[in-house]
Amino acid sequence: MPPSLSEKYRSLKSATKQIETREFADYLADITEYSLGLLNGTCEEIPLVSLVPGKEYFAFRHRSPSRRAGQASSGRTSRPVNRGLFIGDPNELKTILGAFLGANYGGLTTQRTTQLLYTLAMAFCAANDVAKTGDKKTPATYFEMMIGHIFAREFGVKPGKRVNVPSVEDMSAGLPTDFIFDLGPKQAKFHLPVKLSTRERVIQVWAHQRVLNGIHGEGRFKGILVVLTETKLNLRTSEVVEICLPLQWTVYQRYVARLDRVYYLDVPSRYAMLSSTFPSITVKALGEFFTEKSALISGYRLSLGLRCPLPENQKVGMV
Amino acid sequence: MPPSLSEKYRSLKSATKQIETREFADYLADITEYSLGLLNGTCEEIPLVSLVPGKEYFAFRHRSPSRRAGQASSGRTSRPVNRGLFIGDPNELKTILGAFLGANYGGLTTQRTTQLLYTLAMAFCAANDVAKTGDKKTPATYFEMMIGHIFAREFGVKPGKRVNVPSVEDMSAGLPTDFIFDLGPKQAKFHLPVKLSTRERVIQVWAHQRVLNGIHGEGRFKGILVVLTETKLNLRTSEVVEICLPLQWTVYQRYVARLDRVYYLDVPSRYAMLSSTFPSITVKALGEFFTEKSALISGYRLSLGLRCPLPENQKVGMV
Repeated sequence: MPPSLSEKYRSLKSATKQIETREFADYLADITEYSLGLLNGTCEEIPLVSLVPGKEYFAFRHRSPSRRAGQASSGRTSRPVNRGLFIGDPNELKTILGAFLGANYGGLTTQRTTQLLYTLAMAFCAANDVAKTGDKKTPATYFEMMIGHIFAREFGVKPGKRVNVPSVEDMSAGLPTDFIFDLGPKQAKFHLPVKLSTRERVIQVWAHQRVLNGIHGEGRFKGILVVLTETKLNLRTSEVVEICLPLQWTVYQRYVARLDRVYYLDVPSRYAMLSSTFPSITVKALGEFFTEKSALISGYRLSLGLRCPLPENQKVGMV
Repeated sequence: MPPSLSEKYRSLKSATKQIETREFADYLADITEYSLGLLNGTCEEIPLVSLVPGKEYFAFRHRSPSRRAGQASSGRTSRPVNRGLFIGDPNELKTILGAFLGANYGGLTTQRTTQLLYTLAMAFCAANDVAKTGDKKTPATYFEMMIGHIFAREFGVKPGKRVNVPSVEDMSAGLPTDFIFDLGPKQAKFHLPVKLSTRERVIQVWAHQRVLNGIHGEGRFKGILVVLTETKLNLRTSEVVEICLPLQWTVYQRYVARLDRVYYLDVPSRYAMLSSTFPSITVKALGEFFTEKSALISGYRLSLGLRCPLPENQKVGMV
């Protein structure tokens, strides 16, 4: 990737010890605006053939400097970008970026919040795609940091990445997981796995939830899975499809453990329908989280007979 | 890979519809002897630095034709091969190959059986390693077919690769799995995942076992995981280590589901020790399966109060 983008990514990564702060939001906003500048300045938009009903996709393609007359561009192509969710105009983005920086989405519709966060996720991922071939790790780590930041600010605590397990034959055991948010005694606890897309490996998410339920009892940890998208681009045909396995998810939800929410930046409609099956899985756009956050936090307090729900806009105190 | 090796692999693959037959054993023996010939004829043995107590490893390296005087060989290097388990002499292999072809290991010690099967697995994997860079899929598929064959002959039934799930809201659901062996009514059923190595993805094995338990009740399907090895080669330093996560396995065995056996071709001692922890996990060399097969099969019949154990050498009838 361009040295400057790489440098910004390194700065972001080294700032994860303050992932819950406004300063971390500044890093994320800065790298997003920079990525958008790179995409607009060095790439062209390639229309894609969307086989996903109701969604339009395009890709960024680098205007390769070595391109010769009469030859197709050999520039790298980004992952598919959802036209209805991506805010490509930096000036338009600037008008709403304050909501993200201030962690205050009250002035935006949930749809607008989802667009804002989709753009924050996708601008860097696409800029990295056109800069480096086959790099899956950098976008995954970026997305995890970004989602970790958002939830850390909303919950007011730093996440952990390890579950303590009652000691096994005098050996202390721990299980590395995705994010764990512990809001304190008599408060909700959350298990928050983050994925760019799920595919067959997603069973790990339900299995980790099962381990948490086994250690702490059903319901003590709420499981919230956050995913960017399930799109897949066929580079030969330029066709975009969504890879979804809704029946398998239902099997995991029935027999392995229960997840409380799945939030997508780009929601596949076949998963959204799972809220009306048994056992239901509530799949929503991430923008909706901010309107139901209090209910998710106070659900556990309710079950203890404690005061609830918390006022809609009351932030949980920093720990 | 050399056209002839590739051709033999394709023939093997297209014969999987008869995976339970003696003919399939012929294909496996043939490709093993051919691989051994390639390794002995075109490769040199490179000693490796084993950091695994009590085990010695080497690798095959292709004598690259483009090698120039004074330059280190640029030939591809195979995965680590356990000196104590690999039968590199084709004449020595020939003397015991009949046990595999006839599926009759009674004349061999369990250690000798493990060596025989280790060689059947490793010869092709190593030959493919030196022929193709970064091909993970071919060895994995080969090993899966080989293990599927061995258990299909022992159990006398063809394996399936899908679990039927009670229909979900009028939609029939199925879960793709590794091998499922159904020995018939009032007989044992087995869930048999097969992996070249496990690492963090292994939680899927326990989660699938959990789904089976959820559908059919605890104990109806015995879970048997079969793994080649956990070695990892550092190409720069030539050091071989074993990557093991015994405490994580104990967590899965405690909270997700119970596996009945884990068989290795090259057993890591840190996993073998798990038989003495709680909950115990019985980890053994694959050669031991043949001496305890009857007990594994009759365990379920016992719990039904049916005649058992089956006589040691009574094969289950072909379905």
